[in-house]
Amino acid sequence: MNSLDDQMTCLLSPKSLVIVGASADYAKLTGRTVKYVLKYRYPGKLYAVNPSRTDISGIPCFPSVKDLPEAVDTAFLQVAAKAVPGIIEQCIEKQVKSIIIHAAGLGESGEEGKKTQARIKAQIREAGIRVVGPNCAGIVNMTQNLILSPIACYEIDDLPVGRIGLISQSGGLTGAYVSRAADRGIGFSYVISTGNEMDLGVSEFAHYLLRDEHTDVIAIFLEALRNVDLFRDVAVEALNRRKPIVVLKVGRTEVGARAAASHTGALTGADAIYDAFFRQYGIVRLETLEDLFEVPALFCKTKPPKGRNVGIITTTGGGATIVLEAAAQAGLQFPQPSDSTIREATAFLPSFAAKANPMDVTMSGTGGGFKKGLELLIKDDTFDMIVGVVGTSSQFEPHLGVQPIVEVCRDAKKPLVAFCNPNAADALRLFEKNGIPSFRTPESCGRALGYLVKYGEAIDEFTWKRGQRQTPDPDSPNAAKARKILANAGHILNEYDSKRVLAAYGIPVTREQMTGDVDQAKHAAKEIGYPVVMKVMSADIPHKTEAGVIKLGVSTEEALVTSYGELLEKAHRFKADVRIDGVLIQEMAQKGVELIIGIKRDASFGPVIMFGLGGIFVEVFKDVAFRVPPISLPDAREMIGEIKGAKLLNGYRGMEKMDCEAIAATLMSVAGLSLDLGEEIRELDINPLIVYPQEKGIRVVDALICR
Amino acid sequence: MNSLDDQMTCLLSPKSLVIVGASADYAKLTGRTVKYVLKYRYPGKLYAVNPSRTDISGIPCFPSVKDLPEAVDTAFLQVAAKAVPGIIEQCIEKQVKSIIIHAAGLGESGEEGKKTQARIKAQIREAGIRVVGPNCAGIVNMTQNLILSPIACYEIDDLPVGRIGLISQSGGLTGAYVSRAADRGIGFSYVISTGNEMDLGVSEFAHYLLRDEHTDVIAIFLEALRNVDLFRDVAVEALNRRKPIVVLKVGRTEVGARAAASHTGALTGADAIYDAFFRQYGIVRLETLEDLFEVPALFCKTKPPKGRNVGIITTTGGGATIVLEAAAQAGLQFPQPSDSTIREATAFLPSFAAKANPMDVTMSGTGGGFKKGLELLIKDDTFDMIVGVVGTSSQFEPHLGVQPIVEVCRDAKKPLVAFCNPNAADALRLFEKNGIPSFRTPESCGRALGYLVKYGEAIDEFTWKRGQRQTPDPDSPNAAKARKILANAGHILNEYDSKRVLAAYGIPVTREQMTGDVDQAKHAAKEIGYPVVMKVMSADIPHKTEAGVIKLGVSTEEALVTSYGELLEKAHRFKADVRIDGVLIQEMAQKGVELIIGIKRDASFGPVIMFGLGGIFVEVFKDVAFRVPPISLPDAREMIGEIKGAKLLNGYRGMEKMDCEAIAATLMSVAGLSLDLGEEIRELDINPLIVYPQEKGIRVVDALICR
Repeated sequence: MNSLDDQMTCLLSPKSLVIVGASADYAKLTGRTVKYVLKYRYPGKLYAVNPSRTDISGIPCFPSVKDLPEAVDTAFLQVAAKAVPGIIEQCIEKQVKSIIIHAAGLGESGEEGKKTQARIKAQIREAGIRVVGPNCAGIVNMTQNLILSPIACYEIDDLPVGRIGLISQSGGLTGAYVSRAADRGIGFSYVISTGNEMDLGVSEFAHYLLRDEHTDVIAIFLEALRNVDLFRDVAVEALNRRKPIVVLKVGRTEVGARAAASHTGALTGADAIYDAFFRQYGIVRLETLEDLFEVPALFCKTKPPKGRNVGIITTTGGGATIVLEAAAQAGLQFPQPSDSTIREATAFLPSFAAKANPMDVTMSGTGGGFKKGLELLIKDDTFDMIVGVVGTSSQFEPHLGVQPIVEVCRDAKKPLVAFCNPNAADALRLFEKNGIPSFRTPESCGRALGYLVKYGEAIDEFTWKRGQRQTPDPDSPNAAKARKILANAGHILNEYDSKRVLAAYGIPVTREQMTGDVDQAKHAAKEIGYPVVMKVMSADIPHKTEAGVIKLGVSTEEALVTSYGELLEKAHRFKADVRIDGVLIQEMAQKGVELIIGIKRDASFGPVIMFGLGGIFVEVFKDVAFRVPPISLPDAREMIGEIKGAKLLNGYRGMEKMDCEAIAATLMSVAGLSLDLGEEIRELDINPLIVYPQEKGIRVVDALICR
Repeated sequence: MNSLDDQMTCLLSPKSLVIVGASADYAKLTGRTVKYVLKYRYPGKLYAVNPSRTDISGIPCFPSVKDLPEAVDTAFLQVAAKAVPGIIEQCIEKQVKSIIIHAAGLGESGEEGKKTQARIKAQIREAGIRVVGPNCAGIVNMTQNLILSPIACYEIDDLPVGRIGLISQSGGLTGAYVSRAADRGIGFSYVISTGNEMDLGVSEFAHYLLRDEHTDVIAIFLEALRNVDLFRDVAVEALNRRKPIVVLKVGRTEVGARAAASHTGALTGADAIYDAFFRQYGIVRLETLEDLFEVPALFCKTKPPKGRNVGIITTTGGGATIVLEAAAQAGLQFPQPSDSTIREATAFLPSFAAKANPMDVTMSGTGGGFKKGLELLIKDDTFDMIVGVVGTSSQFEPHLGVQPIVEVCRDAKKPLVAFCNPNAADALRLFEKNGIPSFRTPESCGRALGYLVKYGEAIDEFTWKRGQRQTPDPDSPNAAKARKILANAGHILNEYDSKRVLAAYGIPVTREQMTGDVDQAKHAAKEIGYPVVMKVMSADIPHKTEAGVIKLGVSTEEALVTSYGELLEKAHRFKADVRIDGVLIQEMAQKGVELIIGIKRDASFGPVIMFGLGGIFVEVFKDVAFRVPPISLPDAREMIGEIKGAKLLNGYRGMEKMDCEAIAATLMSVAGLSLDLGEEIRELDINPLIVYPQEKGIRVVDALICR
């Protein structure tokens, strides 16, 4: 078959469809799928497979897939796990174009299931058929009236069609989104459950929705990201097209990550890496289940504001304070209105109303003050966006606070959102109908504005960062040099070799020489200049300090000779048959601020780069920043600024400012190295890297590379 | 009048009532109050005051308060701010027993309003009348059918009566609680808006609800706490009586605190101090608006579990993961079920269902598996509490997942709560009706369980801590000694005097002598033993290091003589007419770990004690712990354990363990001192306090006290 897009079109907008395992009993799961596909009037050709019937609710029914009168576009397999491989075979024979597998109990449960799933995978790969699932709760394309799912939320009548494309790694949760969103008047273009993602997954569906004209925002419930490279391309193109991607990802806690893993049978990488990756590619990470439809609904209706300044008008000070506080925690600002706004507001608001921000018109909002105040705030250039907070009137007297927002919104030249204090479902639906983003809780309202602003900033940032992002070059001379050193080393490189790899990428390391005997050591020390450091190099001694095989500040030849013997003795005491590569004679590095840079390979993301201040800052305060290479120089600078300890680099308490540009350059080099050498490097630790005052550079003092 | 309780009873359950400023027009705020008081059938005697009518909806109406036929228990003043003082006068004359003032525009807005409020305060103080407000949105006593409020939420029919007593510093928000809670089937015993709290406030109402037999949980929306001493007593007694107090407090951010302040005209203390205070007194601090009725509803129905182990059963893995993750973030645990539970579950659950924790019965929950699984988890001693997560069936087929929970709950011997994934309002109401705590969002469900566990732990903790909590003793010999030093000092005590105050409380300080000339200095150094530290003592030089008037490591008499002159010269260079108290000759303190202990007086809480590791730990990482004295030794130990840097005291990286008991004893002494001396000390800073390895104690190296 052709491109991924064509395959997806065939799957999501099939001209013909078969439900395998269909039942006429609507109380059964297998009957519900039939019920909903009919209820929503699927317009294509529809078949059923069930050996005991010839007709199900008017759908022509056949004993097996083999007996179908045509090669259908999509088959929905609602049969037990053990029956799946046989039916897949029939589908292949029949040249069915795409398959959705509903059955649970495969890749996510036990050895037996995993084996069967692997077998199915081999089948479909060979035949070139695309598959969704197994463990998939269905595929819904609201724009084509295709509801192919047994989830009971489709009992709801008149589900709104919206412009949010939803992809979920949890099938059960799709029922929650659809029913909760419907209650708010919010609809979807697609609702896709990806299940175990044996073949097609979040990345592939996101790739499709990116180009889909019915979808303005891609919303994802994520447990683990597969096919990161495709997803990265999708994210980049999404920023170009200004089509936001918002993600609710579980697994922030270890126990949550385990639960998610056992649920879909996928391993999730460290959560902090997802945070870094999302940030690098302008993907909005959400916090709550309701964010997953409230925030996309906001993004569908509203372009990001020009700045972070929010104006609030309210009939209830308390409610406004909660909205404000949630937004403030997201980094938004609440300047006071301009003098002229205050002057004009004073003219029509009663004396006890607050002519400030929030503009609290109190109960006087009931007298037309709300609308006038709202118009003033919209007119006031101080504000980049406006929130209308409506109190109890929103439930019982919508003409007082709700209607003014509806009337004013059409002419508002800046984002305007609403929050109703009480349980005002009707008001929320009215807002929704009029294209006004509205929120059920004050916290989600404040938070959502934060997301919108940050998304806008991400677009801007991305534009100027992208050009500077590094490209891997596995064939560069640096890479060749590094590869030569790696080829001659064991799985764990000693400090000397590790640093030579870094030096191949132009990273400054301490001056040092590897020596095989005392005479070489003397010679080296003379060349480097006393005092020197002496270190025993041995793959058997990964932690030199603990083994006592480091001698600092050796300042005379006499001391060097004595130390040489002592160090070797200690090495042998540490392990009787220790293999010694030599003794490293090293310059004493000047004091500076100690840093750590590390690379680890993540199963999903590949190399990940970490930065922090050394010692307690990493170990006690976990004060580190991550990025997923490739990175740009601005990314590297951001990493440095992101840690709390950055203050110690920026002229803390009369100390000189440190050479942060040299750190950023080193981060770039290390990230580049990790990309060029790819799987040839499993782990890399520079600890410590010492940074000196501005323009004085950095120096790698110790490093360890594992292949 | 008599006790606070009697006054409150009169106010909240009045036998007679007058609405001053009542209107017959139900579209007006002043008419709404009349409407609701009638609608809910207030059983006492009811009067109205309105000069233009003799009857309002059947209520006898009089031209003024003076004309009322009796001295009513409660008057609700719904008149403009400027009319209030005159009517108060009439109320006093008429011997009205309590007054509720609705008018805004007094203490919270401008000089004029503040003045009027002060005048009213003087009036009522003299007459001994208790007042709620001004800026009060009303008083509701559901147990007595008293709805005295113009808030439109009382349009709702059949508001449930509940056992949550709600006190709110925002009047507007009461509409949100009542309407939102009603939608969930949750009701209140009281809904009290306290407004500006000119007289009665949160503390006084909490005091009343504590003893009220209709109230099981006290829920508070808080902007600023007044009358902390009363509130502290209430909190202690509430723990004794096992009546939980839950609080939603705004003002975590600076901008939020400002908004709250401008809203009620009160200054809120630092948010971190509230956190500390709440923790010390077992008060549960909530995070969201909906927590304010969902969490109390949980507390009303459920006693705290015995431990932190949660078992989850679900029909939807994704929903369960979100609940689990929120609970895990609150510190709860999710052990695996016992072997026998797994064995029994395997017998009836299909192969693809997860016999683990969460127990994911998937769609098979529709076949009776949910109930059986639930019974197993309840029976399993591994779990202290159980969560049932129901998927889409909760909305469309409640008999499958919802009904089993209802059936099983009666016999459950441990807390059992429910969360419905989709928009299942009916299921939530059914749970509510059957006394099963239930939640609208997965995040609030997980969070709420965390609150319940922590409340249980607070009760246990409090019991064994309370006996050890210090009591102030302003007349102790220590206090007398300290007071003598204070009396002879200026507003800023120099280091020497500050340390003498600390020494009066038995806190170890460096050995040192104050000297007036070189000879005295020589003598002192000889006695203390070289090397010594020399410091110029002057109220004009609060920061000695910056002024260069410290000399460390003076090791000979010769050096001492030279330094003496140099230091004085530097002092004079710092300020020409500097007043010098003397030169302090001090032992060189041994190296150890540097700490900071501070006392600051907060406008609401009085002295507050702060602890942290010195330097960057405080300044860069803000890694500090607060408590409000009095504290106990366990409190002090907790403070030490609470900071992240505590790792550096507990044998970090082969370092010796530090003498944390000595730190705790010092925290106790400093807190005791702050209580004994009260307002005589405005601020106290010990920086640094050096701690040595275990049993080697601590030493105050520098200190500063401001009076």
